[in-house]
Amino acid sequence: MPLISLLTDFGTRDEFVGVMKAVLLGIAPRATIVDLTHHIAPHDIVQAASLLQSSIDYFPAGTVHLAVVDPGVGGARRAVALRTDRALFVAPDNGLLGFLVGRTRIREAVSLENEAFFGPSCSHTFHGRDVFAPVAGHLAGGVALSAMGPAIEPASLVRCELEKPFVTEDAIHGCVTRVDHFGNLISNIGAAHFAGRVQEDEVPVFSIGQQIISGIRSSYDSVPFGAPLAIIGSRGMVEIAVHCGRADRFFSAGSGTSLSLTFKNTQRHDHEDR
Amino acid sequence: MPLISLLTDFGTRDEFVGVMKAVLLGIAPRATIVDLTHHIAPHDIVQAASLLQSSIDYFPAGTVHLAVVDPGVGGARRAVALRTDRALFVAPDNGLLGFLVGRTRIREAVSLENEAFFGPSCSHTFHGRDVFAPVAGHLAGGVALSAMGPAIEPASLVRCELEKPFVTEDAIHGCVTRVDHFGNLISNIGAAHFAGRVQEDEVPVFSIGQQIISGIRSSYDSVPFGAPLAIIGSRGMVEIAVHCGRADRFFSAGSGTSLSLTFKNTQRHDHEDR
Amino acid sequence: MPLISLLTDFGTRDEFVGVMKAVLLGIAPRATIVDLTHHIAPHDIVQAASLLQSSIDYFPAGTVHLAVVDPGVGGARRAVALRTDRALFVAPDNGLLGFLVGRTRIREAVSLENEAFFGPSCSHTFHGRDVFAPVAGHLAGGVALSAMGPAIEPASLVRCELEKPFVTEDAIHGCVTRVDHFGNLISNIGAAHFAGRVQEDEVPVFSIGQQIISGIRSSYDSVPFGAPLAIIGSRGMVEIAVHCGRADRFFSAGSGTSLSLTFKNTQRHDHEDR
Repeated sequence: MPLISLLTDFGTRDEFVGVMKAVLLGIAPRATIVDLTHHIAPHDIVQAASLLQSSIDYFPAGTVHLAVVDPGVGGARRAVALRTDRALFVAPDNGLLGFLVGRTRIREAVSLENEAFFGPSCSHTFHGRDVFAPVAGHLAGGVALSAMGPAIEPASLVRCELEKPFVTEDAIHGCVTRVDHFGNLISNIGAAHFAGRVQEDEVPVFSIGQQIISGIRSSYDSVPFGAPLAIIGSRGMVEIAVHCGRADRFFSAGSGTSLSLTFKNTQRHDHEDR
Repeated sequence: MPLISLLTDFGTRDEFVGVMKAVLLGIAPRATIVDLTHHIAPHDIVQAASLLQSSIDYFPAGTVHLAVVDPGVGGARRAVALRTDRALFVAPDNGLLGFLVGRTRIREAVSLENEAFFGPSCSHTFHGRDVFAPVAGHLAGGVALSAMGPAIEPASLVRCELEKPFVTEDAIHGCVTRVDHFGNLISNIGAAHFAGRVQEDEVPVFSIGQQIISGIRSSYDSVPFGAPLAIIGSRGMVEIAVHCGRADRFFSAGSGTSLSLTFKNTQRHDHEDR
Repeated sequence: MPLISLLTDFGTRDEFVGVMKAVLLGIAPRATIVDLTHHIAPHDIVQAASLLQSSIDYFPAGTVHLAVVDPGVGGARRAVALRTDRALFVAPDNGLLGFLVGRTRIREAVSLENEAFFGPSCSHTFHGRDVFAPVAGHLAGGVALSAMGPAIEPASLVRCELEKPFVTEDAIHGCVTRVDHFGNLISNIGAAHFAGRVQEDEVPVFSIGQQIISGIRSSYDSVPFGAPLAIIGSRGMVEIAVHCGRADRFFSAGSGTSLSLTFKNTQRHDHEDR
């Protein structure tokens, strides 16, 4: 029962996603397909790579991850597939899979050039249907990765820069990288960035816009209804939230808004706490 | 082939739903997952309970219903699972499952406390992934409910009040509880409320805003194109609709709009009919 | 492992689609269901038929296609099912399936009248749940089409006119029939319409609004970022696009906007090219 994850910027109004699934199931009829999302902003490779990175560890070993955000479809960009110890990946080589380089061991990578594993005809505009889904279906069905085309160097994969915070001795200067469905502000400051830096009598203090949030909470409802808080979110990143409210509206913030972290000595400055 | 239904307020733009499915299928690879909806308004427990109530009778026996609308995630609310004669249910104990009490026989209910059936690590913000999906996966895979934690009294489940109409001798005073995708106004007045009350020479008359609708129709197209009508909808409730139009716009109505029902003697008042 | 495709105008906020899947899987537990889309504009039979037509060739043989866009539910329109050499189709007889007549050989068609294959009770408003899903489930499970009701003449199926372009000796006058998720303008001018008509020293020239686009490109990125182009899209139709942009905004165009095609001699008029 192979598992295939599917991530695109195709939306769900057109037939695009359904037709890709038809192709996948025509080749691998016993596969189960899981939609990650089809609502990546059109052509937003960074957003797609970030979402893929947050998701893959939760899939069982052997999953085929098929990601198609492909502004260069029909042009010169390569189509690639690769294998790590846990999973297979199929995507255009435009930065979608670059985050894997250095993060995990890439056992094998190929350029998709063997047309025997493509669809019966190949459009200029929809390689999701004509190239990527057929290849992913054959991989899910057990065809060897090496059959799909010539080997390539993993280091040659196009990378996109997932935003990292700027760390100084006194502060961590990060930003909001995503607003989730609930209006929570997901930042690029991870728990790992400050876990070891908080002294015994210090608390982390976040600055966003003109406002200050002290401390890290362990649940949304640990502050009054409508009040803001900082919490470590499900991706392991600092998240600015509002209890039963929307932080994006509360702070007039969005993707790109600055978020800074400093550390305050609680012994001396208790009167400044809120 | 266990069946799992999934109901959340997570939307479909983030990876939340896809990751929950990855966890479910990692534990129960042969399960089939059916999305009820992921577009419950954020934190709207009443709406989710109402939709769940309208849906469960159509699922085959043995289905595991997994519902996650969880504003209190990470806080003090219990996580629960229970078993009726037909199905299993997994949800936070915040009112989502309270409608089952009294409606059906709850054979067994437990508080989810056995961390052996949780995910490998437990976030403060995403128990859908870390608690509810793992437990639902194990239940779908055949683990006994009693293994998940200590038994609780079904009567102790948190209930939310699904709106009921106010019934007097002369009238039934209800309201619109939901506007569906087509703009139909779904009310809390059920067929059962007036079936036995309509005399031979009477017709039911509905008042909404300043307008009157006489009679119950048996199809949308039994009135002219663009005209309003009352009909018994697919949930067995009175629905105010417009033939090939949107009743929400026609009546400037929405969730909460009053709808009253009286009975008119057709012998004496025929001239008032429209 | 039967495959069922599902196409509706039900949206994904209500329980409608989930309940249809529950019914399908209750009858055909081993079926795999693929959503084509549930975001057809309410009651837009032409849009649904067009999308279905673009999709069915990509599904494996034996697929059951279930399409429910049903403004006449509960009224006099027939409910039908039919069989071609490749697939089964279940839908209201309101134009959804009329495109099959003449396009493919319809082996058998029936009017759905055998209530033994309907759901346990039949509402007036939701035949998707009470008629079409049960019938499709039984067909996917192997029940013979002829068991579902009396045979009907395929030629008696209601047809809807999918827009065709107006072809003169000098030009093809078509229109935009759909705007896809990326803002691409999908037209009703097919590759077949002009493939044989372009002379050796001619290029196709498209007029939309006050603007001219010369030539057919083979990839979106064959023009500069933000520039318009014409390309043969994944449905085999001329598509007006903007490289990494939205053609609907670029041209202030939408469904119904005129698009004309003429042929220009490149020898004499090179200076007019852009």
